[in-house]
Amino acid sequence: GTAPAVVGAQPALRWRLASSFPKSLDTIYGAAEVFSRRVAAMSGGRFQISVHPGGELMPPLAVLDGVQGGTVEIGHTAPYYYFGKDETFAIGCTIPFGLNSRQMSAWMIDGQGLKLMRAFYAQYKVINFPGGNTGVQMGGWYRREIKGLADMKGLKFRIGGFAGRVVERMGVVPQNLPGGQVYQALEKGTLDAAEWVGPYDDLKLGLHKVAPIYHYPGWWEGGPQLDFFINTEAWAKLPADYQAMVETAAMQAHVNMQAAYDARNPAAFRELVRQKARPVAFPRAVLDAAYQHAMALYDEIGQRNPNWRTVYADYAAFRREQNLWFRFTEARYDSYMQGLRL
Amino acid sequence: GTAPAVVGAQPALRWRLASSFPKSLDTIYGAAEVFSRRVAAMSGGRFQISVHPGGELMPPLAVLDGVQGGTVEIGHTAPYYYFGKDETFAIGCTIPFGLNSRQMSAWMIDGQGLKLMRAFYAQYKVINFPGGNTGVQMGGWYRREIKGLADMKGLKFRIGGFAGRVVERMGVVPQNLPGGQVYQALEKGTLDAAEWVGPYDDLKLGLHKVAPIYHYPGWWEGGPQLDFFINTEAWAKLPADYQAMVETAAMQAHVNMQAAYDARNPAAFRELVRQKARPVAFPRAVLDAAYQHAMALYDEIGQRNPNWRTVYADYAAFRREQNLWFRFTEARYDSYMQGLRL
Repeated sequence: GTAPAVVGAQPALRWRLASSFPKSLDTIYGAAEVFSRRVAAMSGGRFQISVHPGGELMPPLAVLDGVQGGTVEIGHTAPYYYFGKDETFAIGCTIPFGLNSRQMSAWMIDGQGLKLMRAFYAQYKVINFPGGNTGVQMGGWYRREIKGLADMKGLKFRIGGFAGRVVERMGVVPQNLPGGQVYQALEKGTLDAAEWVGPYDDLKLGLHKVAPIYHYPGWWEGGPQLDFFINTEAWAKLPADYQAMVETAAMQAHVNMQAAYDARNPAAFRELVRQKARPVAFPRAVLDAAYQHAMALYDEIGQRNPNWRTVYADYAAFRREQNLWFRFTEARYDSYMQGLRL
Repeated sequence: GTAPAVVGAQPALRWRLASSFPKSLDTIYGAAEVFSRRVAAMSGGRFQISVHPGGELMPPLAVLDGVQGGTVEIGHTAPYYYFGKDETFAIGCTIPFGLNSRQMSAWMIDGQGLKLMRAFYAQYKVINFPGGNTGVQMGGWYRREIKGLADMKGLKFRIGGFAGRVVERMGVVPQNLPGGQVYQALEKGTLDAAEWVGPYDDLKLGLHKVAPIYHYPGWWEGGPQLDFFINTEAWAKLPADYQAMVETAAMQAHVNMQAAYDARNPAAFRELVRQKARPVAFPRAVLDAAYQHAMALYDEIGQRNPNWRTVYADYAAFRREQNLWFRFTEARYDSYMQGLRL
């Protein structure tokens, strides 16, 4: 460090942050930039965290390994990418029919969520800080409308990670395809459907031009939370004031990302519809079948995975209470407002 | 300050924060404490902000004056308390049929909200930072059920501030009574109804014992935002790193407060129902009449108040877009989840 060692002076420090995301997802990638700028501003420029897009320092899905192994001090990622190591990672992000955005923040911040997830992540030498949420995502782009359960059978569907474990029980054939190849595959028909995020990101990808049916809701991503993952040794070495800055700056990023999606989705949605995208609700029968499969899957995982069992028990109880409460004044107000010609 | 003027050392600084709230509203008062602790932790204890409950340094509703006049550097308050000075204050907090909690944060942070409100507050020598939200409040406690518009006529209703301007057009007689006198007035029948916040705070007040009908939604408080108000001269004197800490710590308080209400309301709601509170939705006709009166009022204010006209034009356009979008994937997901027997 270059600062003089006087009382009140903080050490100069440089960290590298590996994001799992490309710069083109500006609201998500941008959350890490918000975080980094905030830490720099609060430390008077002495704590600098450089932000690196997915693939620059390591593959996007290797961010957990990179943090755990100390290649970087910090990552910004979606915990459910790592469900192959342990399904419990998915609960820290989102699972089908999980908490919505506000409920997830409530569970994390005022419930047992952060405590339970941190106890789990500690096994990977990681401490996490909530780092953004997208809100309920859309259900993706389909060449043909899903009119019932039969239409799910054999559907070649590009769908991320953990949700594939549910949809394959409905006869869907989950596909794992790099983002850049999805458009062509939909155009050729080697893919029947693909999900991405929501209007703001989807408009940029342009999938509506080749698969115009826009199903909703994205029941497998009701409130996905991103996280900052910090190596526990790097964290322990931080002075207490820098720790407080990191924690607080992460919260700013957390809020800014949700605000950005909420503020920008409406105009993008409108533009998609103008360009002939056709929003269609999933049939109730599809949601019901998916819900049954999801609950069966969670039971099965719980029987063999004690980490899941511990975390999911609390999560599920919290979800039940939240939805019992939210159906009253929150839902009634929103539905009244949404029914108005404002 | 007592700190030596060397590079890297921050000045020791003490501020006083006047809250408009009593300690008994622990989620709200607590938000100011979260803020203060966070600033202290990030500054290594050098920037101390003492938090004073409503009435200790000045009356609860004099916080704006106290900040404007420099009696304190900072306050934590509900902007709509000051609608008597200018109705535009209410927009920075909540107005009947306004934005919900997520929408309000989106407008503030990623829309034009913060920019527009700051331009307005600057006339009062104040800069604001979002400092919490309660979510949609309940519609309060009633001795007798409101079954239609006729039941609103002559209703002696304890209801705060700006909302009174709408309900009086429906024949309600708004009452302004200190919190401590509400229970007795309801018991005696000198008051017919009273609104407070939501289950978590309402349970403590115990009004359900004397007025058991619990109407919802609280259409006049769909997402009230509290603010930290800072004297613009005090703000300008802050070093840039302290400014960044204040801004970021406020955001932590903002999130924590909503999370606290969301996490704690369900159990309180359940307990209220166990104690014979009876949740009843407002009749549609009451909401419709209130909505028409509110829109007429906003038109009238806009014709004579240029501040309102400027801010409300943007706010109303944002609200329209938000509700057009939220009715799709967000509403469909929530309503599906709320309909499940989880």
